[in-house]
Amino acid sequence: MAQTPYQQLEQEFRRLHAFRGAASLLRWDAAVMMPRGSADVRGEQLAALDSECHVLLTSPKVSRLIERAQASSSQLEDWQLANLREMRRERDHAIATPLSLVTRLARATAVAEVRWLEAKQESNFALFAPHLEEVIALTRDKAQVLSQALGLTPYDSLIDEFSPGFLSAEIDQLFRMVSRRLPNLIREAIELQAASPPLPLSGKVGTSKQRSLAVEVMRALGFPFDRGRLDESDHPSTEGVNGDVRVTTRFELRDPFSGLMGVLHETGQAMYDLGLPEAWRDQPVGRDRGMALEESQSLMLEMIIGRSRPFLRYLRPLLEKHFGVTGPEWEIENMYRTLIRVRRGAVRVDADELTYPVHVMLRYDLEKRIFDGTLPVRDLPEAWREGLDQKLGIRPADDAEGCLQDHHWAIGSFGYFPCYALGGFIAAQLYERLRNDLPEFDREVEAGRFGGLFEWLRENVHSHGASLGSQELIKRATGRTLTAAPWLRYAEGKYLEAAGS
Amino acid sequence: MAQTPYQQLEQEFRRLHAFRGAASLLRWDAAVMMPRGSADVRGEQLAALDSECHVLLTSPKVSRLIERAQASSSQLEDWQLANLREMRRERDHAIATPLSLVTRLARATAVAEVRWLEAKQESNFALFAPHLEEVIALTRDKAQVLSQALGLTPYDSLIDEFSPGFLSAEIDQLFRMVSRRLPNLIREAIELQAASPPLPLSGKVGTSKQRSLAVEVMRALGFPFDRGRLDESDHPSTEGVNGDVRVTTRFELRDPFSGLMGVLHETGQAMYDLGLPEAWRDQPVGRDRGMALEESQSLMLEMIIGRSRPFLRYLRPLLEKHFGVTGPEWEIENMYRTLIRVRRGAVRVDADELTYPVHVMLRYDLEKRIFDGTLPVRDLPEAWREGLDQKLGIRPADDAEGCLQDHHWAIGSFGYFPCYALGGFIAAQLYERLRNDLPEFDREVEAGRFGGLFEWLRENVHSHGASLGSQELIKRATGRTLTAAPWLRYAEGKYLEAAGS
Repeated sequence: MAQTPYQQLEQEFRRLHAFRGAASLLRWDAAVMMPRGSADVRGEQLAALDSECHVLLTSPKVSRLIERAQASSSQLEDWQLANLREMRRERDHAIATPLSLVTRLARATAVAEVRWLEAKQESNFALFAPHLEEVIALTRDKAQVLSQALGLTPYDSLIDEFSPGFLSAEIDQLFRMVSRRLPNLIREAIELQAASPPLPLSGKVGTSKQRSLAVEVMRALGFPFDRGRLDESDHPSTEGVNGDVRVTTRFELRDPFSGLMGVLHETGQAMYDLGLPEAWRDQPVGRDRGMALEESQSLMLEMIIGRSRPFLRYLRPLLEKHFGVTGPEWEIENMYRTLIRVRRGAVRVDADELTYPVHVMLRYDLEKRIFDGTLPVRDLPEAWREGLDQKLGIRPADDAEGCLQDHHWAIGSFGYFPCYALGGFIAAQLYERLRNDLPEFDREVEAGRFGGLFEWLRENVHSHGASLGSQELIKRATGRTLTAAPWLRYAEGKYLEAAGS
Repeated sequence: MAQTPYQQLEQEFRRLHAFRGAASLLRWDAAVMMPRGSADVRGEQLAALDSECHVLLTSPKVSRLIERAQASSSQLEDWQLANLREMRRERDHAIATPLSLVTRLARATAVAEVRWLEAKQESNFALFAPHLEEVIALTRDKAQVLSQALGLTPYDSLIDEFSPGFLSAEIDQLFRMVSRRLPNLIREAIELQAASPPLPLSGKVGTSKQRSLAVEVMRALGFPFDRGRLDESDHPSTEGVNGDVRVTTRFELRDPFSGLMGVLHETGQAMYDLGLPEAWRDQPVGRDRGMALEESQSLMLEMIIGRSRPFLRYLRPLLEKHFGVTGPEWEIENMYRTLIRVRRGAVRVDADELTYPVHVMLRYDLEKRIFDGTLPVRDLPEAWREGLDQKLGIRPADDAEGCLQDHHWAIGSFGYFPCYALGGFIAAQLYERLRNDLPEFDREVEAGRFGGLFEWLRENVHSHGASLGSQELIKRATGRTLTAAPWLRYAEGKYLEAAGS
């Protein structure tokens, strides 16, 4: 029987999925296994796969099939309609960046990233500025075409690439609400914590011990080691596809928690990937719902659950078993205070749960001003310093820990930063609801039983894949679209509780 | 400037090279790293890449470009002409198997391989026979089309896929020459060796010790660990591309040499890959010259050099250093006798250097009779038993160690077996010449200096890539096309020398 246009599309996107899975595995290998000198070879392989995906998405054939499938969409089931919508969205994003622009962006960002690193090492913004300007100019071109295709403002269409379904107007509102409360909350938390500083966790813990603890925790969380791996790399990451998920972390000898927290973060994302609907596995509708949702799954494990007393009660005997540690600094209350310590700092990746959104909001403000043309690149360092001072009451020592600290803009990732904060807010809103639905939650966590948690997440988040819009998904799961209220309630409860309660 | 047809072809084949490199890395990962349960996902990824390569090679665009490039070939340099010839050869092979046939063969061999394994486990040929018949019928179709395209007989065109440049008439002649001498040579060697059997190498050696020895030997051979890796897998293999070569072996606790010999074998191939001309790296002319040449590089290291007294003199202190072994069974002469022990056995993969070609010749005879229609599949088990009896004077205990022992036919690899024997003959012919050119060879090997060896191999073999025909390459390197005389001289010298000399 001849295939319908929609069926032919499914076949094309099945190929796309296979190519992307192959590319993801090659990235994992590059981070974990690849010999030092082989980056050139790998770069060519990845470029060939990326360009193949681009050619597929932008082919006249696929566009024609999308039109014909839409014309007969009354014969499609709901999930197929959602799939067709996601196919169109992917096509629109790809078409907005013709291969010539892709190539120019690839070249510009490759150079910009190298210059950024040099500029950061010397704390010399001038070295980076012209390259950043070029990346911004090219990204503006891209945003312009994208804006036409998606019917969004240029900046919103950049956000759509990472966190579909969130408009900057909504993000503005969320951030305003958080901003009204957060500065005071941070001040109060710091004052409160100053009254009872934790004992330092001293000594070294070997990586093989840290690894065996991490594996036991991942097993308890339900990570299927016959469908995935844990390895080490410079930066924690999750690669692979549903069916073969590759988690990496980085173990620090002198900080026994940073590797584990990386594992929790990445396992959150991995469990999302593994919980995606099997029947839609190789289709756009079977993908996750973007970076903000992904980040919510990571932060719920790393920040909300991982840094809670019930989790530390579960962890305590495991620490003794794997690390052989005892003593007052390994008491639950002391570990808890260590893990939720609030500190004002200039560097985003070192920030705690409470000051983290401040760093994101600063970048978001600056990005918007860059894209509405009111912030010239040359004024970025000073705008950064002022912004951080105004929002957090500190100034970076230099540009290296100021506007040069992140590589996102060098690689053209504008519109990306909001997902970090949105992820935290989504996590809190989901968490509030799931605690309501699971009255025994704390006791379960204490006992190392996470089945109920992931059952809830699978039902309410993972199993939808990309079939719902982000806001619709959140609304179905929690009864309303995203607001910052649950996160503020959670943050106040956690950071302003009477100490030691 | 507009690209010439030839330049456009280079670009297409650059993509092909990248896809093949990606596929090779995915196969390596499947053998070494992949979680048990992820084979389905990997299968889809590999199928998508393979089919992409096939589509590329068989596209009307590529065929048109080949025609146009040939029309203006007077403007091409020699290596470009050779590249164009190899492009055409790859295209011809791909076109001979239209996607429908590829798909049918893929399905038939997938089933046949499963049935073959069952049949082997139960030693029940009848379970496998109908599937083998189907694979043969499809392969015959393929050979028919290939025969037309390449102007070779059907069976020769199957050989051409693996060992281009070797015709069955030449192979017949080589095998006849070897057959005249080999049965007596085997008998004499066994008798001679019976006079002084080696002491057994007892005890276990842990894999991490075996690994550290293997790494030291690979370093001495010149394997660049910043451009490659050594790992463990069920079957030794070499994957990856020039620039990122992945060697694997399998260490046996009770046999401290089998893992190392696997490493030597694979490192021979790896050094070939790494020595291919850098300037043609991503082009067909920059590939190796087929399986027979590849095997020659493997066997020269594993069989000729690895199982020689000078090499064991180099190895002796390393064995003591890594394994901590001493005692009479670890004396050079005893190890040498252990490693060159000749035994008549039914199983090819367990065979020694001397009886190995017999196994290959048996398969080759049977394949030819299958393809000229004189041997029906149902008669294969008996023909195998008779053939082995006639050639080696033994009979397999059952079909499991008879005609069911290899998986090659189940996966449709007809025309493959000859390369194993050809590789040994080529190795001997090259080795005879290089010893002539390098008078200090034995002393260099004893001292663990392999620079001269690989310089010679790079100049005479590796650096030609696929720019020369197999026979032309051998002739340039040694002064004449392939004959069996050097191998026979080598074998007689090694196996009939006065014991202990």
